[in-house]
This record gives sequence, C-alpha cells and structure tokens, in this order.
Amino acid sequence: MSTIIVGTPVIAELGSFFKTHGLSKKTVLLFDEHTRKLFGGSLLKTLHDEGFEWKELVVPAREASKSFSVAYRLYGDMIKADVDRSWNLLAVGGGVIGDLGGFVAASYFRGIPVIQLPTTLLAMTDSSIGGKVAINHPLGKNLIGFFHLPELVLIDPSFLATLPKREIYAGMAEVVKYGFIADEPFFSFLELHFSDITNLKEPFVTEAIKKSAFIKADVVKKDFRETEGLRATLNFGHTFAHGLEKLAEYRYLRHGEAVTIGMVCALFLSHQLGYLDHHSLERGLSLLKKFHFPKGLLKKRFLDIDSALLLENMLSDKKKLDKKLRFVLLKKLGEAFLLEESIDESLVLKAINDGRAFFSRKGVH
Amino acid sequence: MSTIIVGTPVIAELGSFFKTHGLSKKTVLLFDEHTRKLFGGSLLKTLHDEGFEWKELVVPAREASKSFSVAYRLYGDMIKADVDRSWNLLAVGGGVIGDLGGFVAASYFRGIPVIQLPTTLLAMTDSSIGGKVAINHPLGKNLIGFFHLPELVLIDPSFLATLPKREIYAGMAEVVKYGFIADEPFFSFLELHFSDITNLKEPFVTEAIKKSAFIKADVVKKDFRETEGLRATLNFGHTFAHGLEKLAEYRYLRHGEAVTIGMVCALFLSHQLGYLDHHSLERGLSLLKKFHFPKGLLKKRFLDIDSALLLENMLSDKKKLDKKLRFVLLKKLGEAFLLEESIDESLVLKAINDGRAFFSRKGVH
Repeated sequence: MSTIIVGTPVIAELGSFFKTHGLSKKTVLLFDEHTRKLFGGSLLKTLHDEGFEWKELVVPAREASKSFSVAYRLYGDMIKADVDRSWNLLAVGGGVIGDLGGFVAASYFRGIPVIQLPTTLLAMTDSSIGGKVAINHPLGKNLIGFFHLPELVLIDPSFLATLPKREIYAGMAEVVKYGFIADEPFFSFLELHFSDITNLKEPFVTEAIKKSAFIKADVVKKDFRETEGLRATLNFGHTFAHGLEKLAEYRYLRHGEAVTIGMVCALFLSHQLGYLDHHSLERGLSLLKKFHFPKGLLKKRFLDIDSALLLENMLSDKKKLDKKLRFVLLKKLGEAFLLEESIDESLVLKAINDGRAFFSRKGVH
Repeated sequence: MSTIIVGTPVIAELGSFFKTHGLSKKTVLLFDEHTRKLFGGSLLKTLHDEGFEWKELVVPAREASKSFSVAYRLYGDMIKADVDRSWNLLAVGGGVIGDLGGFVAASYFRGIPVIQLPTTLLAMTDSSIGGKVAINHPLGKNLIGFFHLPELVLIDPSFLATLPKREIYAGMAEVVKYGFIADEPFFSFLELHFSDITNLKEPFVTEAIKKSAFIKADVVKKDFRETEGLRATLNFGHTFAHGLEKLAEYRYLRHGEAVTIGMVCALFLSHQLGYLDHHSLERGLSLLKKFHFPKGLLKKRFLDIDSALLLENMLSDKKKLDKKLRFVLLKKLGEAFLLEESIDESLVLKAINDGRAFFSRKGVH
C-alpha cells in the first residue's frame, strides 16, 4: 500500500522521503498551470537543492486535461526527455492532475512509480489515495483507466490556504462521508468542528485530513479491486450524485456538491427502508445543513429538476451492474453497506423528493 | 497466474473453460481481418451454441493496429455496445491482437479480464503469456502499456496449419530460446525434432508449445515485474535483435528472425567472455543453423550492416538502464543469466563480427 504522510512543510523533506521509499531522484513533475504558479517555485528550489534531475510538464487546469490527447502529448515529451523506467512521476494538483498523472505513470513503459502531492481538500482526502486513475472518453467520464497505487502520498494542509471556499466545501463532502460510512467518533468530531475545519483552523484541519486519508486507505487496502462490496461503500451518496453531475454536464456542479445532495437523499433512503433510526437521520441532516452552495446553484441543479429525469440519469451511471441501481445505505452513523437487492423506483423517487424538501426548507443554503 | 490450456480442438470447450474460471458469458471478440476469416466462423458458432452474448471487433492485420487511435475506436465501440465490467475480452490472433486486446482490456473501466487465443507460434509460446501488453508510440514500440495477466490462455496447435513457413521459423526462435536459457533436456529434444516441429508433426509440435509456454509462465511467475533479473533472461539474444529490428524499421525483419541472429551473437559473446564452453557453443550454433530465412534477407538486414551502426542502434534500445547495454548470457546450455556489469564495446563488436562470419559460411541460410 501507499505511504501517506501528512505534515507542514512536507516538501522540505522530499529528498529523504524519496530515499526512504526507494524512489530515484529522477522525477517528472506534473503541474497544471495553476499549481505551477502557486507551488512550482518552492518545489523546484527543493529539487535543485536536493540534487534531483527533473522534467517539468504543465497542462491546462481543467477537466479536459484528463484526455487521450493530453496523455499522448505527455508520453511524447517524456520519451523525448529520455525518461525511462528508472524515473518516477510527481503529480502536483487536484483530482485532474492526480488522475492524469497516475494514468500516464501507470502506462508509461509499463508503469513507473507515481507520487501524489495533492493541493485540494478533495484530492488530499479522496482522489489521491487508493490508486484509481483514469482519463475521460467523449462517451463518459473515467472510462479508461487502471488501478495504480501511488508509492507515496505527500499531504501538506497549508497548501489549502489559497483554495477557494467553494472547493473547501466540495472536499468537505468526502470528509463528512467518511464519518457517515466508517467512524462514529469522527462523525462527532465533525459535528463539533465543522466550521473550524472549513475555516482551515489547526489542528482541526490536519486531524480531519489525516483521519479521512487513513479511512480511505484502510478501505482500499481491504478491498482493492472493489470486489467485496466494502470499497463500494465509498460511494455513499454517489448514485444520486452521478445523476446530478450528468445533468449538470459535469461542469456546473462540483463533485462534492453533488455528493452533499446525494448523501441527503441516501440518508432519507436509509431511514425509509428501515435501516437508519430517526435520531441518526436528524443528526446526519444537521451536519449536511452546514454546507454552503453558491447562490442559485441548488435551485437550478437540484430543486428545479424533475425527479424522474434525475432517476433516468442515475440509471446511466457507469457503476450500475446489469442495469440495476446500486445503493450504499447506512445502518447507523459510522456504518455503511452496499444493498445487494434492487429497490423499487418509487422508493428512490421518494428519497429524491425528501431531499428536495429538505433543501427547500428555510435556513438551508 | 494465468491458466494455460493446450489442446485440439480448444474452442469446443470454451463454455466450460469460461465457467470454471469464473468468466461471464459476455465477451468482446477481438480479431484481425485475417483471423476473423480463418477462425471467426467456428468460434461464433460455438459462442452461439453455448449461449454467449458477444460483441465482435475487427482491426486491420498489421503492426499499425497497436496504436492509440485504434484503441480509442475500440473503447468507443465497446461503450456504445454497453460493455461493462461484467464482460471480458477474447483476443484471437498473433502478437498484435494479443497486445492490443490486452491493452484495451487492462484499461477499459479500470480493467476487464482478457482471454488469449493465440493463432501464431510466436503468440502461442511467447507473447500471449506473461501479461506484458502494450501499444506503440510514434517515438517507439511498446512504450505505452501495462502488466495485465490473461485469465486464460487457450492454445490450439492445429491453428498453425495455415501459418506461412516464415512465421513458423519466427516463432521457433523463441521456442529454441527457452531451451537455451532454461532447460537442457528441452534443448536436446529440439536438436532431435527441429524439423518435426517446423513441419508441424504431432506430438512434437504440441510438446514444444507446451514446454515453451510453461517455461515462460514459470519465469514470469517468479519475476512478474522483471525486477529480479530472471524475467530479463527471456531477452536472450534480444539486445542484438532490437538493434537489427530498429535498422529494419520494424518491418522488413520478423522479430523471431532478429532473435535468431541475436542468439548467434549472444552465444559467441557468452563463449568469448569465458562463460560458455566450446562444445556447447558448437551445439548451440548447430541448432541455429537449422533456421531458414527468406532469400536475400540475411545479407540485406545483417551481413551488409556495419557493426558500429548496429551497436549504435542497440544502444537506443528501450530496455537499457542508464544508457548501459545489458546482455543475457549463457553459463551452459539450459542456464542463462543477466550480466550486471557493462561490457567493453569492442567485445560486443567482436560478437557481431563472429555472428556475421557464422552466417556467411557455406551451408548456412
């Protein structure tokens, strides 16, 4: 499994971390234009001081960079720079860079090590961990990819200082998810310190990241290829979310925003089917009430959407198996499971409507 | 590890083999135009009789099919046909189809099982086994790829009946290689039955395929990611061969033909450095003397080539590490090793010249 290191400043010790993990000092640096500007200077200085040989690659900071044509260009740049199997690749950025970097590293010369240096809360707590790497196909997101574990995940919470608030909430959705699916004490911690974390107060933010990263790593370790149903519990709220994201053309709604809405619906569904008691439902909804959305977004991307249309878009989710919708439900706060049987569509529609009613209430953003 | 089944007729039992190995009856069939014509009819009939659901894909029968653009088209065809993670892919063909099919299967939805049904002697004894899959980049062959083991390798020696003689010799080069590197009794068997095998006489051809496939699988099992030096011994003769193939633009010389020439040079090098005794050298050369080349090929693609130019092209081989040439040498017939230290270029040039002298002698084709 990958080694995950959380600390500030994590870059300062790059050389020794690489050495400890048997990684050579020959590194392809993958940035997006944004992370190059923010973190490139200090990173390159460190590499220079530590005697690294490196090749820098920069791609546009957008989802479209997770494409064949960009991967193809990167392969070419690496071949021309004489990058061989003795090199590794350091991916500096959010989910797009982590996925693209992991994809390229997994496939270059049949695989070179990848090191993740995530710069968003979502990447620090979710996408950089677990080895799922992919690029998009015009016919669907993340369809082409592999399992390729990072050798090392280096997380520096201080990198979050420049992250827009919207991205903090988007990442926070996955953080809260770990509390829901795996750890009741962590859930209680999040109830208590939600605003400390979203305001990046220490030691709360580091604690939240550490806990999230280690829950994710633990689940992944136990069910790497998602064959046991355990890794699937990481998709709590995601069946609804994917339908919403699809309707928003994967552009107008952040993944974390869709997951926040999806978790509200999944809580209602868990309660409705008799798994989750009323008190836990209320506690769950109270925590999810703390999330903020940009003005008008909820209305346009959820409240105004016809439930049947959302259901239809959920059905085209790639994670379906034999056309059945699969739901992750809660037994209680801190324990999730993948429901094996299929659910009557009317129950799913009711959960969506309950979710809509929740977000329509006064006081919910 | 993969299960390898050698028998005639192997297709007849497809359904039960799939069942035993937990493979679903939902299969993407990948052919080239040639194998579609030769084997498509009987295969599709079997799938129909056994109640399979399938999607047929056909690509041109040429090296250029191992490309991004072809893989990209296949992904799209599979997505449109609603192929999901419950499907598998059956690759019916030689090395190109096996590599392309393995590449696509490894990367589609983060990996679906691949079943290899090799149709050439080379694919039956080498490329279909061991999970190295790749496509080409304009800047080099096999640069983009993965390790993705086939679930099942189904080998039917009777498929070879239509294979041109040149392809039989090309495959035979790898067969003979296994005798050299791993198994002295097998080497003796090949000395005795070389022409029985190249004339496709049973039980000799089945025995040679079985033995080769199992030696390859055994080496791969012990050193899957080629980190121990053991898997590297499969490259006996290949350092020379890659230089020759590069000079022939990967078009005018079959891989096996280049390997045959390369093994002659590697035998001389092994002897010259004091590892292989004179008697074994002579036995090795006698066996390699039995290979036939198309008229004029040896002259144009080896004898007329300047040794220094060949050496230069060997140096651009992708398997080099830190720019040093790496050689697999024989200690004796049936035992190879990867030489760790680098060799003076003059010794490599001498081995090339000895090889040239060998092939220039009367009686060698």
